[in-house]
This record gives sequence, C-alpha cells and structure tokens, in this order.
Amino acid sequence: MKFIHTADWHLGKLVHGIYMTEEQRYILEQFIELVEEEKPDAVVIAGDLYDRSVPPTEAVELLDEVLYRINVEMNTPIVAVSGNHDSAERLSFGSSWYKHSHFYLKGKLTGDFTPVKVNGVNFHCIPYAEPGTVRQLLGDDSIHSHHDAMSAIVNRIQEEMNPDEPHVFVGHAFVLGGKTTDSERTLSVGGSGCVGSDLFEPFHYTALGHLHSPDAIKHDSIRYSGSLLKYSFSEASQRKSVTIVEMKENGSIELRERSLRPKQDMRELKGHLEELLDPSFYQSQKVDDYLKIILHDEGTLIDPINKLRQVYPNVLHLERKLELTDAKKKSSFKVVEDKKKSELELFKEFYADMTTGDFTQSKEDVLEKVIEKARQEVFEG
Amino acid sequence: MKFIHTADWHLGKLVHGIYMTEEQRYILEQFIELVEEEKPDAVVIAGDLYDRSVPPTEAVELLDEVLYRINVEMNTPIVAVSGNHDSAERLSFGSSWYKHSHFYLKGKLTGDFTPVKVNGVNFHCIPYAEPGTVRQLLGDDSIHSHHDAMSAIVNRIQEEMNPDEPHVFVGHAFVLGGKTTDSERTLSVGGSGCVGSDLFEPFHYTALGHLHSPDAIKHDSIRYSGSLLKYSFSEASQRKSVTIVEMKENGSIELRERSLRPKQDMRELKGHLEELLDPSFYQSQKVDDYLKIILHDEGTLIDPINKLRQVYPNVLHLERKLELTDAKKKSSFKVVEDKKKSELELFKEFYADMTTGDFTQSKEDVLEKVIEKARQEVFEG
Repeated sequence: MKFIHTADWHLGKLVHGIYMTEEQRYILEQFIELVEEEKPDAVVIAGDLYDRSVPPTEAVELLDEVLYRINVEMNTPIVAVSGNHDSAERLSFGSSWYKHSHFYLKGKLTGDFTPVKVNGVNFHCIPYAEPGTVRQLLGDDSIHSHHDAMSAIVNRIQEEMNPDEPHVFVGHAFVLGGKTTDSERTLSVGGSGCVGSDLFEPFHYTALGHLHSPDAIKHDSIRYSGSLLKYSFSEASQRKSVTIVEMKENGSIELRERSLRPKQDMRELKGHLEELLDPSFYQSQKVDDYLKIILHDEGTLIDPINKLRQVYPNVLHLERKLELTDAKKKSSFKVVEDKKKSELELFKEFYADMTTGDFTQSKEDVLEKVIEKARQEVFEG
Repeated sequence: MKFIHTADWHLGKLVHGIYMTEEQRYILEQFIELVEEEKPDAVVIAGDLYDRSVPPTEAVELLDEVLYRINVEMNTPIVAVSGNHDSAERLSFGSSWYKHSHFYLKGKLTGDFTPVKVNGVNFHCIPYAEPGTVRQLLGDDSIHSHHDAMSAIVNRIQEEMNPDEPHVFVGHAFVLGGKTTDSERTLSVGGSGCVGSDLFEPFHYTALGHLHSPDAIKHDSIRYSGSLLKYSFSEASQRKSVTIVEMKENGSIELRERSLRPKQDMRELKGHLEELLDPSFYQSQKVDDYLKIILHDEGTLIDPINKLRQVYPNVLHLERKLELTDAKKKSSFKVVEDKKKSELELFKEFYADMTTGDFTQSKEDVLEKVIEKARQEVFEG
C-alpha cells in the first residue's frame, strides 16, 4: 500500500498583499503529475486545504478542480481532514456524496471514530478541534489542553482498534518537537496548544499537518509533510515536498520525499543597492522570485524599492541592515524633547538612528553648507 | 414522470433581525415528508437555495442534510440551479461528485447546454446570470438586457433540442407578468431585468424561481413555485406551496399545488392597543406568529411595543395608522423655526403631527392646566 502525504495547501492565501492562487495552481499541476507518476493507493491531505474559513471563489474553484482530477479522473482515493484555517462546516458540505468515489473528507469532528479503510489500511481521521469542542463532544470535563483532547481521542480510537491491522493517524495539530514559523499562527501561549508525540505511539504512521516544514519534527513514524509552498520569509530556507509512504501489511513503513518546484521561489537577497542593480549580478538571478531584500548600505538611499522593482518585480519586503543598539533605539523616542537643538545636531541624531555609519567631519561640513544655503533661501528668497 | 418544483429556500435568511434557520428546518422537514409521500421521479429547485453568497454555517449544514436525505437516503434525483442570492462558484463546489447519485447542481452558467435527462425528460438548467456574463460567454455583443441574454440562451438550447421528447426549462429570472414583493431585491430599473414569457414557448414546462408567490405569473406552463416561507410582510397574504408536475411522454402536463404550513405564520394584525391586549381577543390568536401590528389608536401610547410583546412575543414591526397629509408632513420640518411659540402652540403642532385626531377644546383645557402646574413647580419648587 502506497500513499502520498501532503498538507497545508492554504488555498486562497495572501502573502504580503499578493494572492498566491496562480502559484498554487502551478504547484498543484506538479502535484497532479506526481500523483500520475507515483500511482498511489491514496492521497492524504492533513488539513488547511484553504487558508481561511471563507476563501475567495478562485480558491474554491481550484480545490474543486484539483480534487476532482485526482479522485474522479485518476480514480485515486483521497483521505482529508480540515485544519484550523478551514471552516469545518463549510468544508464538510457535500462530503457524504464524495464517499461514493472514495473521497473521504472529515470536516467536523464527530463522535464517530470509525476509521476509513483503504487497501487494508485504517486511516483515523481527526480534524483540528479546540479542546472545548472535544470536552463537550466526549463529555469529559478533565479536558483542558490540546494534549488532553488528543489523548482522549486516541483512547477512543484504541478501544476499537484491531491490533493485527496497520493504522495511520491523519491529523492537524502542533505536535511537540516542531519548530514554528511566521505563517503558522500561534495557537496558544505557554504550551497548552502542544500535543505530546508519545500519544501517537499506537499508530504505524502519523500524517500531520499544521507546521510547514518537513523537518519540524524528528521521528521515525510521526511526520509533517510540510506546506506546498513557502508562505512566509521565515520559510525561505525550508524544503517543500510531499512524503511518499510505502506501508507493508504488518505496518512497517518506508518513507521518501518528493520535492515541489514553485514557479517563483520565495527567498532573501542581501547586498548593497548598487551591487543588486548591477546587470553582472542580476543576470545570474531568477529576478521574478518573491524577494525579501536586505540592503547593507548606510546613508540615505533615494526610493530604493522602486529602483529594485525595475529589476526584481516581486520584491515583497525591503529591509535595511541596521545594527541598532539599545541606546540608539531609546534616542529615537527622545527627539521630541530636544526642541532647542540646532539643525545640525538634530540631523546627526537622525543619521545615527537610521544608519550604522559614522557621521564624519567631511559629512558635517557638507551638511553645514546645505543648512546655511537653505536658511539663506528661506530668509532672503 | 412526476417531479416536484420548488425554489427560493433562502437558507440563512435574516428577517427583521431574526435568523429564520429554525423555521426553515421545520418547513423542510415537512417538505421531506411530502417527498416521501409523493415519491416523485425528481425534485427541481429553481435557485436561491441560500439567501447570500456566504451563508451562516447553520444554513450550510441544513442544506447539506436536507439534500442528502432526499437524494441519497430517499434515492430521489435532484435538479437544481443557483439563483441571484447564491454564489455560483461556492455552490458549485463538489457538484461533479453529486452526479453519481443523480444530484444535478448547476451553479455556474457554462457554454455546455446539454440537458440533464431524468426518466426521459430533458431538464435544461440555466442558473441566474447577469447579461454581461452571458454576453461574454456566448461572444454575442448584441446582448444587453436579461431578455437578450435569455433569448440567446434559449436559441442555443433549441439548436440541440429533440422535438419528439419532453423538455423542461429550470431557471431563475424575473419573467414578465410577475408581481414583486419586498423580499425579492429589485434587480434593475426600467424593465431591463425582465424576461418576456414568450421565450419559453419551446418548453413543455418552465420551472422558475425568483418571485416568491405561486401566483406571480398566470400561464399554463410557466410557473413560479413560490418561496418555502413568507420572507417579508409584503408576502403576508401569499400562499406558500410547492408544485407537483405530472408530465406525460408527449410533454402534456398536469399541475397540483401542495401547501406548506410554517411553525409560525407571518401576518399583519390591526386594531386598537387595548383591544389587542384583551384576553378575549388574543386567546383566539396564534400569539407566537411573526407579526406586523398596525395600531389604530390616536394620541400618545406609553411603550406599546413592550406591552404587545408580553402577549405577542414575535412582534417584528409596529406601525401607527397615521393618515398624514402632505401639509402635516411639511409642518414637522418647520418646528425648529418656531422658537417664539407658546408651549400650548408647540404641543398642538406636535399632536397634529403624531395623530390623526383633532386637538379638541377639552384636550386644550387639560393641557393648559398641566403646563401651568409644571411652570409653578419649576419656578416655585
């Protein structure tokens, strides 16, 4: 039995004000090709199919089309759960009909813990749920944290589990050991959002969604597939892939990763403005990637973002590399108090706040002349 | 071949600030019973399944449940199109899967005009579409109005039509001859929203949605089923029902109406406050109906809405029967100019604005005493 484990598609995602739908369509085409090549017995999607409870209609149409091609046209069973970004109720609509063609979508957690069986493997599908929801559903007042909730759910699953068969857990949760990035919204403070990985011991494989890196957790049989695409610059150095799981009848597994190549990468670029705008440099670059550019220049730059965008059209974020000391940071809040300072003194402070360089004597000489000239124009002009 | 024609469910509708979802669940239970009794070969829903493009999740769950019971559990084919209140794209999600169990949902108008065939009858499903959309879809620049659009669509349908078979048009439009009510949003001014009924001549039956009364159009074979429930007080006197269509192989039809009885009716109640609060009157009333109350009293009433709600908990709207003349209306805008008038004069004007009765001499005598007493208390107290 072979299945592909993926998660965190986040269809309808906006990144720095740009809808990723076309990028997502591109990468999903690759995914469909990959499914065609691998011919798995199932595709498992571990939550966050959409990025929000009410996704834009383009995302709705894209998901419909992709799932239809995989499930109906390619006749591949799909096992999916909703994540914290999905609306369990909205995603659930129609799921009763999908079963006919072996598309098993669990949108809302219910009291029915019967697994989905595909080619002899039991898939236990547990959509993302808040501890309060699980407490109410199971009538168990001792449930307070995500760990409590998952523990109670796994207990329920175990009651009906046939130990002679292979078992896969499909879920969307923050399992302890993972590293978070910006695009995974923090769920809670102080660890109550975390779930201990020991809970998944009864399963031969645990297919997780929620964290966006395939390296988020180090474990032989518990795994995040990672997201389809990089969804924030904190993911810039992450691999993006899906996991191919080959499972034997006794539940033993073999894992492989297959990487996905986006139309445009999301990455950081560092250097001096002049350097980045030099053809000998940028001709070796994929200039239409989504970029966060960090400029090393000190001193004033005139409209650097527009200059950069003439070469790199998809600069999403621009930063100056400023090594501010604490003292410097404080001084910026003092300016309003310093009304009696001269223009030169005020400018010196401004320069110190905005750059990492020294305001040398020659710079001071130039500025004094500028101030003098401006003063003359104001009073004489 | 027998089918049930219904439309305008408007799930998720808010009426005067109240979600109708529970009312809708109640009436849909009746509808399901009716389907069980009639055992039709199909259920036809002519648009506006939801009241808005993003309906509340309760409405999504209700629609899912009702359609599943009819289509899968009762094994009844469903033919449905989206209306102007539905989001064509959102409603379409999953529709490719539904066909397996003979649930034919046409959310978005496409260039494919192949009819759905159920028991030898061709159902031509045309969801609501703006003229601009149809113009673009058909590449026909002469399309400007809804009538133009429908005419072009029907021409396309006719190209492929087998004249020896029975044909049903299923659509959502404002077909000429209909009467509008408050809860059908006006689509356009000056008639460009209307579609001439002569266009539907090629069809043996035309199952329409959009107008909420089954009497909206008088025609042997073109019919609005009407909405499931009364959705505004302008529909208070309308019958609410579904239409049972029995169609022979030659396309000849026999129509029957089956009425639906809501848990709480929506109606108007008129009278004097005292009368309406009299047990001998209200004991014969269904006091928990949704009511618009029109009071005939003249003169001041203290907090009539709360008094009425103690007897009639679902008063949604209260009106005073005031026959304002134009002159009276104008006078209310003058008050601010009349700063030099006496208290008595000001009150006389106020009384005239607010009531239809005369401010008689005896009323004037009473008020003069009240004003005199108040003045004494202010200056002496």
